[in-house]
Amino acid sequence: MDMHDLTRVLLQKNESKIVLLVADGLGGLPLEPGGKTELETAQTPHLDALVARGICGGLIPVKPGITPGSGPGHLSLFGYDPTQYKIGRGALEATGIGFELGPNDVAARCNFCTVDAQGNISDRRAGRIPTPESSALVERLRDIKVEGVELFVEPVKEHRFVVVFRAEGLAGNVEDTDPQRTGVAPLDPVARDEPSRRTAEAARQFIAQARTILADQPKANCLTMRGFARHPHLPSYEEVYGLRAAAIAVYPMYRGLARLAGMQVVGKAQTLDEQVEVLASEWPNYDFFFVHFKYTDSTGEDGDFAGKVRRIEELDAMIPRITALKPTVLIVTGDHSTPSFLRAHSWHPVPTVLVADACRTDACRTFGERQCVQGGLGQFEGKYLMPLALANAGRLEKFGA
Amino acid sequence: MDMHDLTRVLLQKNESKIVLLVADGLGGLPLEPGGKTELETAQTPHLDALVARGICGGLIPVKPGITPGSGPGHLSLFGYDPTQYKIGRGALEATGIGFELGPNDVAARCNFCTVDAQGNISDRRAGRIPTPESSALVERLRDIKVEGVELFVEPVKEHRFVVVFRAEGLAGNVEDTDPQRTGVAPLDPVARDEPSRRTAEAARQFIAQARTILADQPKANCLTMRGFARHPHLPSYEEVYGLRAAAIAVYPMYRGLARLAGMQVVGKAQTLDEQVEVLASEWPNYDFFFVHFKYTDSTGEDGDFAGKVRRIEELDAMIPRITALKPTVLIVTGDHSTPSFLRAHSWHPVPTVLVADACRTDACRTFGERQCVQGGLGQFEGKYLMPLALANAGRLEKFGA
Repeated sequence: MDMHDLTRVLLQKNESKIVLLVADGLGGLPLEPGGKTELETAQTPHLDALVARGICGGLIPVKPGITPGSGPGHLSLFGYDPTQYKIGRGALEATGIGFELGPNDVAARCNFCTVDAQGNISDRRAGRIPTPESSALVERLRDIKVEGVELFVEPVKEHRFVVVFRAEGLAGNVEDTDPQRTGVAPLDPVARDEPSRRTAEAARQFIAQARTILADQPKANCLTMRGFARHPHLPSYEEVYGLRAAAIAVYPMYRGLARLAGMQVVGKAQTLDEQVEVLASEWPNYDFFFVHFKYTDSTGEDGDFAGKVRRIEELDAMIPRITALKPTVLIVTGDHSTPSFLRAHSWHPVPTVLVADACRTDACRTFGERQCVQGGLGQFEGKYLMPLALANAGRLEKFGA
Repeated sequence: MDMHDLTRVLLQKNESKIVLLVADGLGGLPLEPGGKTELETAQTPHLDALVARGICGGLIPVKPGITPGSGPGHLSLFGYDPTQYKIGRGALEATGIGFELGPNDVAARCNFCTVDAQGNISDRRAGRIPTPESSALVERLRDIKVEGVELFVEPVKEHRFVVVFRAEGLAGNVEDTDPQRTGVAPLDPVARDEPSRRTAEAARQFIAQARTILADQPKANCLTMRGFARHPHLPSYEEVYGLRAAAIAVYPMYRGLARLAGMQVVGKAQTLDEQVEVLASEWPNYDFFFVHFKYTDSTGEDGDFAGKVRRIEELDAMIPRITALKPTVLIVTGDHSTPSFLRAHSWHPVPTVLVADACRTDACRTFGERQCVQGGLGQFEGKYLMPLALANAGRLEKFGA
């Protein structure tokens, strides 16, 4: 069941305001069995106050046992079933650097590599060439022209960059050219279907010209392309929820993901403090606000338990400034868990609290992993969060008579 | 996954008896945060005794966040996925007045309206003409004849009535004729597909003759038609569950819904007391009994918290007479929540208790919203209730070897 088939038909507009505060990688684990998680360790008086008024649950981003990347994690929170809507690797890489993908775009992730005199790959990552050097090479690749196709070449980091092919009717079903091992030549970009032949041909021409330009570069004299992908064509927040939605995120990846869902990226905040300022100043202009806080994830990935605890407390301190705006519905959750114990994203349900007048408060009193799975929302798939938010905002009519 | 694909194959018959007691709109909300709901406020010693022996859960009628009407709410309890089986508006209106829709029927909801000398609608509801007057007009419309189509014209209330077209092969995909505003003429009934052309033509002829009959009526000289819909063709309880099922309901709507699922409507009870009498007298004749109690919903819709509490206590007092019949499985639940706080149906999970010898009792001790979502059934979609009932009645074989 696609929930949008329901929300599209049932949506009704009103004056309510919904805030979705996403602490990236919020969920955690204790360092030893029976211990406390990062969230359970943190002093969070303001989040606990939300819990006392709200309803809690354990949010399952994709399905039990499935660890999501940032793309599927956010799609799920935004209400797009991540097993149905897939953002191809190329599109995600472009989105991650803030490239605004259009409906006629196919993006590919590229690696600078080195090939020997026989044309066989000797280093698939060109010695992880430093970003300033690879950016200079990217600059030179911008001279490439392909008849009938607009090209964009954008640096990412070290050996990684993105090429976007833009032309009406391009499809993204093209084989990777990276053979995934050294000692062999890069593969040709081969179309897997008819509508992708033009994309493959454009990629072939791009690669040929790039090899000429790079021929005498000592560190990176070749490139490979992977993950050809179109714009994922998500139906917009306006269409499926009737919401004018704003995204307040510091990192390009999350701004890009929000843009794919039709949200307006607002402000130029660089800190949580500035994000909340933007929230307050844009308050009259939107119905829905996605506020993204990155550092609960990055400390988790660093294995920095104490750091993650501090970041959670930093977030907690900001809550009163959000509640002062009197949102009709306030949700605090994460796109996945990132336990510092694992130094990585994980599959564990994400502690979630939803506060609204008619939310039917449960017995939870503090914000934590073990409390939340006992909460009134139980454990639930992320794709149900938006319907719950809309219901609590009075924005969904009755289904059937 | 359609559960009927499983139950159909696994069903086995035995002497067990299942009672599904539906307190319409049972779930509620506290009037203030942290307070008690209607059910938590009510003194329910007998329901609490069931809870102590039974297993509890929070039933989600459709999907999280979705508020069901009575149709989808009951379909879900009866085990028909309400997103898969839809009862069109016309069919539901006919069902609601107790009209027994057959497989060759298309029903339309009609409004008496008034049109001015130019034929433009001046009042879409004919001044909400009193029911006795509109019933007299309905009586006159029964003279209408359409070649090859049997017609039924039935009063509902005030300006509302129902027309049923009966002929083999009629389809229901016909546009509404109500333009939804005044100052313009009613629309023509237009078929949206080939099989609906005959229905549209019959509707056109009906309307033309009706306008002649009504021409000199001062209050209602015209009509509009909406929500053309066929019989929803539910597979029957006998076919999908192997159950001889009886419905004991006071209101025509619920009798009609039960009939759509192939239940036999038994008795002419007008009170809960009489319903339980019918239950006892029909006990040997059926395997499954649906008993519908309306007033928990109507008090909720009136915003009458204390009234809803009293109605729940009234229901509670009747429980010993049901348990005295020694049902193999007794379920008490609702088709949706109707918190008096909201004065409307809502999306909140419905407190549910299932009592049977092998139910695996949980820690719940009182019947309430917050207790139930902590129960052994957790939160579950309504369509799983019937499989659980059958399992507890020993009526489902092992799946696979």
